[in-house]
Amino acid sequence: MLLENIDSPTDLKKLTLPELPRLAEEIRHFLIEKLSATGGHLAPNLGVVELTLALHYLYNSPQDKFIFDVGHQAYVHKILTGRQNRFDTLRQKDGLCGFVKRNESEHDVWEAGHSSTSLSAAMGMALARDLKGESNRVVAIIGDGALTGGMALEALNHIGHEKRKLMVVLNDNEMSIAPNVGAIHNYLGKVRSEKIYRKAKDELDWLLRKVPAIGGKLARTADRVKDSLKYLVAPEGVLFEEFGLKYFGPVDGHDVNKLIEAFKQADSVDGPVLVHVLTVKGKGYSPAEADSHKWHGITGSYKIESGQVVKPVGPPMYTEVFGSTLIELAEQDKRIVAVTPAMPGGSGLLKFAERFPDRMFDVGIAEQHAATMSAALAMEGMKPVFAVYSTFLQRAYDQVVHDICRQNLNVIFAIDRAGFVGADGETHQGVYDIAFLRHIPNMVLMMPKDENELKNMMKTAVDYDAGPIAVRYPRIAGTGVALDERMSSIEIGTWETVREGDYAAVLAIGPMVQVAEEAAELLKREGINVRVVNARFVKPLDEKMLLALAKERIPLLVVEEGSVQGGLGSAILEFYTLQGTQPASIHIAGVPDLFVEHATIKEQRADSGLTADAIAKQLASLPVRKRQKAT
Amino acid sequence: MLLENIDSPTDLKKLTLPELPRLAEEIRHFLIEKLSATGGHLAPNLGVVELTLALHYLYNSPQDKFIFDVGHQAYVHKILTGRQNRFDTLRQKDGLCGFVKRNESEHDVWEAGHSSTSLSAAMGMALARDLKGESNRVVAIIGDGALTGGMALEALNHIGHEKRKLMVVLNDNEMSIAPNVGAIHNYLGKVRSEKIYRKAKDELDWLLRKVPAIGGKLARTADRVKDSLKYLVAPEGVLFEEFGLKYFGPVDGHDVNKLIEAFKQADSVDGPVLVHVLTVKGKGYSPAEADSHKWHGITGSYKIESGQVVKPVGPPMYTEVFGSTLIELAEQDKRIVAVTPAMPGGSGLLKFAERFPDRMFDVGIAEQHAATMSAALAMEGMKPVFAVYSTFLQRAYDQVVHDICRQNLNVIFAIDRAGFVGADGETHQGVYDIAFLRHIPNMVLMMPKDENELKNMMKTAVDYDAGPIAVRYPRIAGTGVALDERMSSIEIGTWETVREGDYAAVLAIGPMVQVAEEAAELLKREGINVRVVNARFVKPLDEKMLLALAKERIPLLVVEEGSVQGGLGSAILEFYTLQGTQPASIHIAGVPDLFVEHATIKEQRADSGLTADAIAKQLASLPVRKRQKAT
Repeated sequence: MLLENIDSPTDLKKLTLPELPRLAEEIRHFLIEKLSATGGHLAPNLGVVELTLALHYLYNSPQDKFIFDVGHQAYVHKILTGRQNRFDTLRQKDGLCGFVKRNESEHDVWEAGHSSTSLSAAMGMALARDLKGESNRVVAIIGDGALTGGMALEALNHIGHEKRKLMVVLNDNEMSIAPNVGAIHNYLGKVRSEKIYRKAKDELDWLLRKVPAIGGKLARTADRVKDSLKYLVAPEGVLFEEFGLKYFGPVDGHDVNKLIEAFKQADSVDGPVLVHVLTVKGKGYSPAEADSHKWHGITGSYKIESGQVVKPVGPPMYTEVFGSTLIELAEQDKRIVAVTPAMPGGSGLLKFAERFPDRMFDVGIAEQHAATMSAALAMEGMKPVFAVYSTFLQRAYDQVVHDICRQNLNVIFAIDRAGFVGADGETHQGVYDIAFLRHIPNMVLMMPKDENELKNMMKTAVDYDAGPIAVRYPRIAGTGVALDERMSSIEIGTWETVREGDYAAVLAIGPMVQVAEEAAELLKREGINVRVVNARFVKPLDEKMLLALAKERIPLLVVEEGSVQGGLGSAILEFYTLQGTQPASIHIAGVPDLFVEHATIKEQRADSGLTADAIAKQLASLPVRKRQKAT
Repeated sequence: MLLENIDSPTDLKKLTLPELPRLAEEIRHFLIEKLSATGGHLAPNLGVVELTLALHYLYNSPQDKFIFDVGHQAYVHKILTGRQNRFDTLRQKDGLCGFVKRNESEHDVWEAGHSSTSLSAAMGMALARDLKGESNRVVAIIGDGALTGGMALEALNHIGHEKRKLMVVLNDNEMSIAPNVGAIHNYLGKVRSEKIYRKAKDELDWLLRKVPAIGGKLARTADRVKDSLKYLVAPEGVLFEEFGLKYFGPVDGHDVNKLIEAFKQADSVDGPVLVHVLTVKGKGYSPAEADSHKWHGITGSYKIESGQVVKPVGPPMYTEVFGSTLIELAEQDKRIVAVTPAMPGGSGLLKFAERFPDRMFDVGIAEQHAATMSAALAMEGMKPVFAVYSTFLQRAYDQVVHDICRQNLNVIFAIDRAGFVGADGETHQGVYDIAFLRHIPNMVLMMPKDENELKNMMKTAVDYDAGPIAVRYPRIAGTGVALDERMSSIEIGTWETVREGDYAAVLAIGPMVQVAEEAAELLKREGINVRVVNARFVKPLDEKMLLALAKERIPLLVVEEGSVQGGLGSAILEFYTLQGTQPASIHIAGVPDLFVEHATIKEQRADSGLTADAIAKQLASLPVRKRQKAT
């Protein structure tokens, strides 16, 4: 075994070139085996084994900076930089992070979980290097999917302008998470299918020498032809060359020796270069090669032989309920169209896409475009449903403010992964959307307590026509509640008391309603009766109920799986202050002012005091309790 | 006069082709004269006179949709659609909006104030049209500057993929507000400087016929040559053709007949097309042609003959103080670099750029890239100062969360135009940055009460090294306060009592400190002594002072020129709630939950109750007053 002797890039460099393919095979086995227990981003990492080996073999990390776009394809990098023995803890609390993480290793120089940031990072690092008079390499490894993200193109534009020495490794596997879409993708497809006409230049020179006498009238044309030789010689790179980067490739991404050759060549250029590497997502593990979409990220464990992924049994995920409900609604209403930024699977839209291919728009990794295009669809009388993860909606904040809410357009937001997301950790937590959406005028924002209410909220959103309306839901299974035979609209801005009690009222949202009910159940054993309110509208609030609660002088505890800063509790505080009324007392349990790292959702909730036990304890210790008991 | 008979596009269509250049001249005179009184975006509109005429002459608005990117270059469109007689009210309260505005005319079909949204809007409108089985045209008019915005490139990628019929008119004037930067700009420059080799194809065909016998070995090359003909025939369009759009141009944007010809040709294509129009920003008014950067937007009036802009006298603008202070600091600290997304002038950085050309990075209209590049510069030990308008920082919200704050990097944000911005109106108000920044972990956010404090806050930011730190300042002149000889750091999270009093305490921020002092002065005449606190840190709050205020049982009024929802007042409410302590009472005066339209800043403040009179009145009516007086 070569792998067991590799604890650092220095160890790697001791290997001979012929040994590298063997090491690549060992790494593949290591990944397939380790991840079968922990889950994780298997397919992306199988695709970059040779690419990562070649970079670490040739260059000197951490002096040379390797910037992994998205960062979920850095497992091989982690293996090569001394973290082999921690893979049993992958994506677990206090274990190895599923993304690049600076506190794990000096070789992790840039963190990401969102796509398309690596080129901007590389540009900044190259500028800093030059300003400091240093000479290290800067290498960004970016997938073809991530290249469609607007900020990557902004960076490309600036890179071509600045002309600093840096290397872009384009990891072209024809996939983001789902198969890619868009003109850039089609362009790369063309490149991939073309043979390289390395000899074309010589042959054309010969052709031109054959007709030396034409001169005169044709001299201009001949010059022009020579001018266009770059397109003949390297038709693959036109787009990138126009952006000002020197193009190398395409290179077989699973031939480590060819990769080393290409990287060497590219490194000799004193300016920005792009090395186009063709890889196969899931390479070396046939189930993953066959369905790299499914194998992009595996949540649980799987059986290596069969490739069978162990699925939890139980109620359907909110995501699934969203997907099937959207089909139901779209059958009735032709105006409904779905928009996704490269997440047809993750957002539960695959069946919708099958049923309504003409009404499904996957725009690629392009949240900003998705939002504003949805605005325009609404402007023209359609009912666009913009399905997006809470954390990725952050990318379209300006478009939500400026294009959708300011023009008060009837866009429906289906915000998935709201709240904690578990193993993906801090880059993916959906804990800010309330804080960044609720201050925008015209917005309606709601969250269901269970999957049946999700259906009714979707119906509500489709029936609503006064402006933007958002429904957010978590990355978990529903509660298993019975589903209504017919969906019905919920009156905007109304909450629901789900349990009576007069000791205190818990105003809970989403899955926290169930947690609050459990807490109430615990307290009941002590003879304490707590009211539980499903505070399903964050905006507008149920002002009538809030005023009644204040009048009643009942203490309030807001429970939310989102940032306390700017959250639902904050909205309620503002409401009472602007009204000039105050409740008996008000308290908030939510996500504190820090980034919450990877763990299970259960652990993340426990760390934030969002379990039934913790809520029961907080309720029991309310400062007003004694006073109340005394009366 | 032709113009006086033009009240609608129908009137325009009655003119003959030879009359159009005359009308263009009349429109130019109209604009130059009208704007000399009101100010406004003169240069951009002088550049698009013929372009707008040609579009309205050929096509049928509002059935055909004209989407103006940014929307500040729609004055000609407004003139042609019945709004000539309202130009005296341009950019004034209840007057004509300086941007496209749907409530003004059915011809205004899409609003914008931020750049680069038009292609997404066009894509959405084209999709809606096709889904509804309609056949109207969709035309996006976008500047070459706006094309570098990431979302425009995201849209281009999708447009090339969808292949729907729509027209992009590229208004190429080599400028955004400032001269453009970037590879796309350089690419367009190359196109502009090349002659069009319309005959090249014929000539090359002839050349190839001359050597018919070569065959065999060269057949492949010959095919290849033919394949590359598109680069010979339309070298200008390669970039766009690669994106999947059919390219037409470049066309002289001041020859209305040639424009009509080009638009007709382009319209015959059943798919996405791009018409590349070369225009001169400021065309026809020599002062504006000579310095289109300055003449992009004129705030006040100007003298037509001399081109002299009437400047208000008085203290320097905050923006200027920022610019000169940054130079002072950068002289001392080599790590300081400035980053601007295409706003070197507006952000007060022109002198910095002269003094430190190697430390100034104008990245084009690319806020996302600017933010993440700043993160990387900080990662490598530099002190990047990201200078950006509050409203445009909205575009980089995700990058602030994910790249800067999550990695806790020492980026300095210089947030200009915080608060009301006056005549630019609702798309440009800087009233959300507190709400979208203060919930992000690790962020420090401050605002000075005057220009001297701005200097000290910049010093504070440079001295601070524990993470991201932002200073926000308004689009107004300073107070005229004396400037300290030496700048000094302010302790993070400390507020300052600027006036004593025990009736109530006003917690004011930024320019509201002065307004609060004026209000206190008014109340003093009635024998009421109000305390005024300069609440200069939004995050972290001055917790010590807040606890002392609560203990003192003094009523509190928070005054902020920003959204009440999620604002400073909201932060203070959260603090007390999490502490389990409450002040005697707390009240908030701020911007209500709606979009505030164009007017003067003074009027906008008055409408939101943010004047000395209104604040004095609110203080006088505090519910606790009587109780307090009674004791």
